Amino acid sequence: MTERTVFFVSDQTGVTAETLGHSLLTQFDGVEFKPVTVPFVDTVDKAIQVARRIDLTATQSGVRPIVFTSFVQDEVRAPLVGIQALVLDFFEAFLAPLEAELKAQSSRTLGKAHGMQDTMSYDARIDATNFAMEADDGHTTRHYDKADVILTGVSRSGKTPTCLYLALQYGVFAANYPLAEEDLETGRLPETLRPFIEKLYALTITPVRLRQIRLERRSVGRYASAQQVSFELRAAEALYKRHNIPVIDTTNSSIEEIASTILNETGVERRVRP
Amino acid sequence: MTERTVFFVSDQTGVTAETLGHSLLTQFDGVEFKPVTVPFVDTVDKAIQVARRIDLTATQSGVRPIVFTSFVQDEVRAPLVGIQALVLDFFEAFLAPLEAELKAQSSRTLGKAHGMQDTMSYDARIDATNFAMEADDGHTTRHYDKADVILTGVSRSGKTPTCLYLALQYGVFAANYPLAEEDLETGRLPETLRPFIEKLYALTITPVRLRQIRLERRSVGRYASAQQVSFELRAAEALYKRHNIPVIDTTNSSIEEIASTILNETGVERRVRP
Repeated sequence: MTERTVFFVSDQTGVTAETLGHSLLTQFDGVEFKPVTVPFVDTVDKAIQVARRIDLTATQSGVRPIVFTSFVQDEVRAPLVGIQALVLDFFEAFLAPLEAELKAQSSRTLGKAHGMQDTMSYDARIDATNFAMEADDGHTTRHYDKADVILTGVSRSGKTPTCLYLALQYGVFAANYPLAEEDLETGRLPETLRPFIEKLYALTITPVRLRQIRLERRSVGRYASAQQVSFELRAAEALYKRHNIPVIDTTNSSIEEIASTILNETGVERRVRP
Repeated sequence: MTERTVFFVSDQTGVTAETLGHSLLTQFDGVEFKPVTVPFVDTVDKAIQVARRIDLTATQSGVRPIVFTSFVQDEVRAPLVGIQALVLDFFEAFLAPLEAELKAQSSRTLGKAHGMQDTMSYDARIDATNFAMEADDGHTTRHYDKADVILTGVSRSGKTPTCLYLALQYGVFAANYPLAEEDLETGRLPETLRPFIEKLYALTITPVRLRQIRLERRSVGRYASAQQVSFELRAAEALYKRHNIPVIDTTNSSIEEIASTILNETGVERRVRP
């Protein structure tokens, strides 16, 4: 299998270049990529160094690297012109049509994270993260009136990471409540959840995958036994059905997919945009 | 101020379209954008509906919306050709040059989250998230040998959200240890941290901003007093200096910037790529 070095270069964090590059590269199965992220390339000197490093990689490996860049400043992009690589610049490709459409010049400024807007975004994300931590695993249920959504499901169905992702990525207040064995045995919706039934969203998972996850955590005892796992999942799914609680199967989904689906189906508004 | 509706449309989660679109739009200060995300547009029928919705928005608002798309499948992109909008498609712009460079056809397949690779990514992110939760706020220090990095700092300097972001975004194992008043008074590095001094990274913040954050949490008492806040920050910064612990000021940084800086400066490897 061919190996290609891929550089993600940016005068900011590089997250944009990585996101774009990764989306594109997953479309090429037959190639093995070796990723290198170089963030904060915000001076011409640093850009010249990166250009040299890329050229060196080209010479040493015998194949041209692929370079995804997201430079806000034009002058730091300049040293990367004419290097031995395929350079795909995200701002260059899209800013011109946007400027024409908006009949406005882009400000081409770094550090958009320093305005009022971003302090607000930061605060929203932190508040939502604190909320998710405090309302994790049913620890505190008294703030459920503040929750945008309350995830429920059996242990290890993916509730905690989804809540944290919703908080960090979108500033959404997500609580989570694990279904205990008593709840599953009686088949009744826990008292605590009843006033908030409209906010509930359930996560489910296949028995095979749940067992695999639980085994990694605790390999002995009933917790990860085939019988226990299928009992819990069957009982939980019956409960969701009885109460018309929407359900997503997390087995083959990424955290992004689970979070996007929940936002899309509930209509919960993002407080922050990525 | 002009208002423009911006659509982020995708046959997947829409996270790529949102991330890229947001990066571009922050470069235009004078325009107010009204964002709408439409994920999972994975059939021609759904694409036709979105196309109608966008045309309707154009007619009603009197200005063409801006549409960021990241369609993997060509056939669902087709209905968006010729609508009353500026349509910027990320895959369309970059797949052709990549195919030429790699001398390979892109697979143009959805649901890359279903392969072995992505189960591994999912597990890495979940494991890292569990680690961050367990090792949050110094709760458990016995797994510090497993940590890729240990963040330290005074209360509310940004440790927890950064650890969780490192876990969810990159699968990095990040623990965090809050500096207690005793540590700050003696000026000595806590016993627990000494064996792991190479893994330490400190977060600091300005007194003004820290006070503002603490006041929102607990408005009375010493915790948010100007005197206490400056004492803690001064003592902590002296400690970092004495032990050569690298420090980042989080005051004007986004969570992404803090995380990228830490990875870049420590050389800690990402286990997962966004």
